[in-house]
Amino acid sequence: MTPHPLRRTALVLTLAPFTAFAQTAPDRPNIVVFLVDDLGWQETSVPFHTEVTALNRRYRTPNLEALAAEGVKFTQAYASAVCSPSRVSLLTGMNAARHRVTNWTLRKDASPDTPLKGVTPPAWNVNGLRALAPGETLPPETDAPAPGRFAVATPLPELLRAAGYRTIHCGKAHFGALGTPGEDPRALGFEVNIAGHAAGGPGSYLGEKNYSAAWRTSPPDHVWDVPGLDAYKGTTVNLTEALTLEAVKAMDAAVAAKQPFFLHLAHYAVHVPWEDDARFIQKYRDAGLKGTPAALASMIEGMDKSLGDVRAALRRLGVEKNTVILFLSDNGSPSQCPANLPLRGHKCFPYEGGTRVPMIAYRPGVTPAGTVCRTPVLIEDVFPTVLALAGADGKPAQPVDGVSFVAKLAAPAAADPAAAARPLVWHSPNHYGYTPFSAIRIGDRKLIHHHVSRKLELYDLAHDLEEQHDLAARHPELTRQLAAALTRTLRDRHAQMPLDAQTGAPLPFADAIAR
Amino acid sequence: MTPHPLRRTALVLTLAPFTAFAQTAPDRPNIVVFLVDDLGWQETSVPFHTEVTALNRRYRTPNLEALAAEGVKFTQAYASAVCSPSRVSLLTGMNAARHRVTNWTLRKDASPDTPLKGVTPPAWNVNGLRALAPGETLPPETDAPAPGRFAVATPLPELLRAAGYRTIHCGKAHFGALGTPGEDPRALGFEVNIAGHAAGGPGSYLGEKNYSAAWRTSPPDHVWDVPGLDAYKGTTVNLTEALTLEAVKAMDAAVAAKQPFFLHLAHYAVHVPWEDDARFIQKYRDAGLKGTPAALASMIEGMDKSLGDVRAALRRLGVEKNTVILFLSDNGSPSQCPANLPLRGHKCFPYEGGTRVPMIAYRPGVTPAGTVCRTPVLIEDVFPTVLALAGADGKPAQPVDGVSFVAKLAAPAAADPAAAARPLVWHSPNHYGYTPFSAIRIGDRKLIHHHVSRKLELYDLAHDLEEQHDLAARHPELTRQLAAALTRTLRDRHAQMPLDAQTGAPLPFADAIAR
Repeated sequence: MTPHPLRRTALVLTLAPFTAFAQTAPDRPNIVVFLVDDLGWQETSVPFHTEVTALNRRYRTPNLEALAAEGVKFTQAYASAVCSPSRVSLLTGMNAARHRVTNWTLRKDASPDTPLKGVTPPAWNVNGLRALAPGETLPPETDAPAPGRFAVATPLPELLRAAGYRTIHCGKAHFGALGTPGEDPRALGFEVNIAGHAAGGPGSYLGEKNYSAAWRTSPPDHVWDVPGLDAYKGTTVNLTEALTLEAVKAMDAAVAAKQPFFLHLAHYAVHVPWEDDARFIQKYRDAGLKGTPAALASMIEGMDKSLGDVRAALRRLGVEKNTVILFLSDNGSPSQCPANLPLRGHKCFPYEGGTRVPMIAYRPGVTPAGTVCRTPVLIEDVFPTVLALAGADGKPAQPVDGVSFVAKLAAPAAADPAAAARPLVWHSPNHYGYTPFSAIRIGDRKLIHHHVSRKLELYDLAHDLEEQHDLAARHPELTRQLAAALTRTLRDRHAQMPLDAQTGAPLPFADAIAR
Repeated sequence: MTPHPLRRTALVLTLAPFTAFAQTAPDRPNIVVFLVDDLGWQETSVPFHTEVTALNRRYRTPNLEALAAEGVKFTQAYASAVCSPSRVSLLTGMNAARHRVTNWTLRKDASPDTPLKGVTPPAWNVNGLRALAPGETLPPETDAPAPGRFAVATPLPELLRAAGYRTIHCGKAHFGALGTPGEDPRALGFEVNIAGHAAGGPGSYLGEKNYSAAWRTSPPDHVWDVPGLDAYKGTTVNLTEALTLEAVKAMDAAVAAKQPFFLHLAHYAVHVPWEDDARFIQKYRDAGLKGTPAALASMIEGMDKSLGDVRAALRRLGVEKNTVILFLSDNGSPSQCPANLPLRGHKCFPYEGGTRVPMIAYRPGVTPAGTVCRTPVLIEDVFPTVLALAGADGKPAQPVDGVSFVAKLAAPAAADPAAAARPLVWHSPNHYGYTPFSAIRIGDRKLIHHHVSRKLELYDLAHDLEEQHDLAARHPELTRQLAAALTRTLRDRHAQMPLDAQTGAPLPFADAIAR
């Protein structure tokens, strides 16, 4: 049997009367969600495919390799195809079809959707996430637009905080639009906010540029300025390093206060702009990479160093055996990046290259070292998983679509009949980088519904991970079944469809097309 | 007497029967308009003020110093406060109030104006400049919006081409919106177009980034990609250098073809994005500059090297004694740059810091070396000046507001009573970086009319170049006179005013306020 990893911490906690929760739940682990932005399934040196690919050989992520060697590698982990939907799902447990933050948010009441002939986007929740106010109750879900165009929920950090956790956000937030409550992570249950705000990307990763984009627009646009981090502005410290140093300070303070912590370390990296990380660029140039591909590789290694530094700090603080680490990305790599081979497509796309993300979980003393979990998981599953790990028993106001994968941390390869029958759903009625779509996966079968062309595609991921062979015409009955399941799930969640610009009527769901 | 500088060229030209014009005008000089973007009055090592300033000491432009030592320095040269208006004025001879391209252009039928409470921008010519079609006649000018929201004119290069010149555009064009004829300089009379298109800035100055901004947006926005220059993409060649190399090639070809040339070398530099020019950055860092200020300084020196390289090529080609060089900028430096001291304000502003630009002219054998011209000139004056230099006798369809300064090249300091009485006018009914304004300068008196606040400011530039002492209240009669002259000039040119958002009525001209 593994020795109890919490003995030292638990002892200390019983001596700390100011944390009332400590005495009732002495074994609560610290939890680090290490969320990377726009990191593709192939963009690390850890192979998530059955074989090592060219990209795995290109990138250097030794700390991620070490984490995988100690933890569980999830080879079929999924997020939404774009960032805000994933982030709201993580914080609420709701699928994007339900929370309706189906594209990225920034400006109040404004959508970044690209015009599309003949089609109008639905009234999606352009203002992002807002925490349910004290005493407020959620209205019943309907097909009507949400009041104020907000997703309203009990956010994950609020439940953790109520359970005695110190809740720390560090890095990219991107939960709510400018001028709305959700632009500040502290309005969503985080006690500490380091450098998070409404914008979904940094102006720059360079301290020399003050992490600002003012150098590239005239008049200067300060909306992308990373807030805070004043001590690093004007220095040569890369943003990823600055966030790591501040996250370590926040962990240090929580440990000193004898409080378990939830650290949401959500790096801006490796989102655009792609700028050389001076610490690592030379080796990629020496390897023959140039320009953006070299810059991206250096940023990926900078992100990996952050993971290593966080783990070193956990060791230094003596809490490494009592800290769960969950590493994942928020969507696939953007279309300017190298192809996600063997996967098809990129960020914003309904194909695996858009939605399948690298994910590794490490629970000391629990995860069997160097194992693989092939059960599909979705980013909204993080919500119930983290609550389960924390032993937090507060109930969120919203319905939770996510399913806890906490059992997978102990038994990654155990048979799971429920998972095999579970419908995994993606929903993007928006036009941004790709035309509006929904998709469903049950078992190894995946159906994609293109809303505007009214086309259905059917793939068998077990034999065609590359999504090259559309089987819809050959398997009409299976197509109909998946279309019906997709439609049922979306209707249950009051999903919004794009509107016909002429009539204002929603475009049909998949079942009407498969018929 | 100066030896005839054209003997060799003229001799050759008589042997070149395919250039019919050569025999009738053997002394036509080559003309290089070296137009820099966003270069402030103080952003070179040439002092345009009465004393050397801190910025003159910061920047290193030895080639510009050499040009000033041989040519005429114009210390009171003006452009519009923003780029497209200046560029359309240069190509048409019309003041911005008349051509109505009063803000920068990019997307068809779309304005970049920032919303302003209670005020609507007028139907300005958002689609930029279009060349008058063969057989088309200009409609009479009216106050109504222009059809298609184009400025229509006979462009300068078309007249030069008709006069036998090879017309070469190299660099930033920014004359017409995407998807309109004017997006291509070749539709405006340029035979050769190197790297010019609809956009007013480059995605990047770095060959490593393919001169593209795709590395900083997701999905990639290719609208800022510099077109052409494929041989340099993926290399370490800075954009300013690439343009210079290509401009030299084009001059070489014109000389080889025994054709006089008009080179419009319109650098993207030093417009945003401000990126280190690797060739020059170190010396500015060593001097203690960091971040954007260091990057800008390196870009300014890169621009200066281009001027030196062009002049070296002219010598190598044996045409340096037969080539007029006109160096100027298209507006003041942006607000992120160091203050334009002693001037007030920046790009987009009605103050001298927004509109006064560095300008130097060199006409070999004509300009007295190292002289200064203090007569105010406006960017639309380049149009009649270049036509006069070329001896082009074609007539433009449009009325020309510019006044030739060709006589100043021979006698920079000669008394000029007409110039002392000339009204110089600026007009920006747009909200972009600054609120809508008009301004007029007659002699040393300058009146600024703020359209929305309905405020008038009066300055005496001879004693208050800094525009710190508003004399409007102390000199109501002078204020009234200037307001009347401003109004008369604007009405003559059918200038557009911003509209009251409630009533749709134009805001009043200055005379109605001064009354």
